[in-house]
Amino acid sequence: MKLASYFLPESQHKSFGVVCGDAVIDLGLRVGWRFPDLKSALEAHALPALAPVANHPADYMVDDLTFLPVIEHPHKIFCVGMNYAEKRKEFDETVDAPTLFIRFADSLTGHRSPVVKPAQCNEFDYEGELAVVIGKPAKAVRKEDALSYVAGYSCFMDGTARNMQFAWFTAGKNWSHTGAFGPWLVTTDEVPDPNALAIHTYLNGQAVQDDNTANMVRSVPELIAYISAFSPLSPGDVIITGSPGGVGMKRNPPLFLKDGDRIEVEIEGVGRLSNLVVSENR
Amino acid sequence: MKLASYFLPESQHKSFGVVCGDAVIDLGLRVGWRFPDLKSALEAHALPALAPVANHPADYMVDDLTFLPVIEHPHKIFCVGMNYAEKRKEFDETVDAPTLFIRFADSLTGHRSPVVKPAQCNEFDYEGELAVVIGKPAKAVRKEDALSYVAGYSCFMDGTARNMQFAWFTAGKNWSHTGAFGPWLVTTDEVPDPNALAIHTYLNGQAVQDDNTANMVRSVPELIAYISAFSPLSPGDVIITGSPGGVGMKRNPPLFLKDGDRIEVEIEGVGRLSNLVVSENR
Repeated sequence: MKLASYFLPESQHKSFGVVCGDAVIDLGLRVGWRFPDLKSALEAHALPALAPVANHPADYMVDDLTFLPVIEHPHKIFCVGMNYAEKRKEFDETVDAPTLFIRFADSLTGHRSPVVKPAQCNEFDYEGELAVVIGKPAKAVRKEDALSYVAGYSCFMDGTARNMQFAWFTAGKNWSHTGAFGPWLVTTDEVPDPNALAIHTYLNGQAVQDDNTANMVRSVPELIAYISAFSPLSPGDVIITGSPGGVGMKRNPPLFLKDGDRIEVEIEGVGRLSNLVVSENR
Repeated sequence: MKLASYFLPESQHKSFGVVCGDAVIDLGLRVGWRFPDLKSALEAHALPALAPVANHPADYMVDDLTFLPVIEHPHKIFCVGMNYAEKRKEFDETVDAPTLFIRFADSLTGHRSPVVKPAQCNEFDYEGELAVVIGKPAKAVRKEDALSYVAGYSCFMDGTARNMQFAWFTAGKNWSHTGAFGPWLVTTDEVPDPNALAIHTYLNGQAVQDDNTANMVRSVPELIAYISAFSPLSPGDVIITGSPGGVGMKRNPPLFLKDGDRIEVEIEGVGRLSNLVVSENR
């Protein structure tokens, strides 16, 4: 199942539902009294019970809705830095452990919504990444069991203010509307191995990152085991698993995002996340 | 006013109140229907209205209650790294900007509650710090106005798993019950200048850190301005402002926390936070 969170401009309310091609079957309409949003459905471990709804007639077309971040208010968003060999080479990275930083939910934006380049930033860079959405409480889980704690996967465009990144990432990674998260969550039955997926980033249609999640230094199960050892994870929490090489800062000349650019992240079997870059001060 | 959050073992409920010497005047009892906790009172900007309650007769003695973290569930906890000259020298720090990392609320513990040394960690270190609690929504505020966004101050003992710290701090700083936060919030009328306070850390009664908040590299107003530029702050959010030199890792021989140690942070005009260290695996 592909599960999207969205706002309905016509009725001015938020909901979530199943995406089938161009059609959307609303789940909020049918089970909204029990689950106001996708995170609460995950908290109730309700995805199996929701699956039959996917056979209902469509309620809307995809073009009728405004996508929200797949999970609008995750409690914890862990971001992994320097997790692809090519990226580590570009940044001369020597730290052995996974490098971790945090995004707050108010830095997120949805599929097709603007990604906002901060006014203070002239080095606004793209990073295409696989997002892992946690499906059940996970504390100190073993690597071997880790994938059973996953609800599904999504694409993420980790827009980065490079000129502020080096203050241990937090400052460069938390500007409003810089983290695009979507289009939807693809449940794990459709993605048996999250470390065998082609991942591409396109800037105005040109491929700028081209790799495979098989090349992560730390795999998805290893990341879940590492993180859950020191910080318990809950349904709707998100792990952003790091970006391949090819980011704009390390190109010659550098290639930063500017007003009007179209930035897209496509992951095999997951989807293609597409956002327009808008300057905060335009 | 000194405002504490606590659990009442006898009646098994949580509340908050004003501490006057050894006595506590409960605010939850009187205004609980409006403000279930201190954070919600801050959100309603209710501190001025609560001040007359400080003249009521005492409800409990301080020893009757179990302290909770001053704010039990802050939405955002920003921690500043390398913000005292002596600490920067110890760690050969060269990054110019404030260094920032995040703690989650589930890593906190209250005054007099155990600080838990993670089982995996044999390099568990102390850092005594001034905590700033935000009192009203703050977005891109000017340094000159920043202190008007503060509700008050508290002590913080930023227990650090040094062996995991260098994965950009997040992993070393988020183990359960490692961040002691208390004893209480002292409102700003009692602390006109947060950058003129003696700060000491005591390990089993011996002074191990001895400095003054005047020696912060970035002052409290500068930190609020810097952070609120990229991430909006809300009532109850916390900024932990960094630790002076003298941490255990940089001593010869190193001095790490072990089961049974008493660790205390005392800040002039704020209070003395005291916690027993307990091993997770004892």
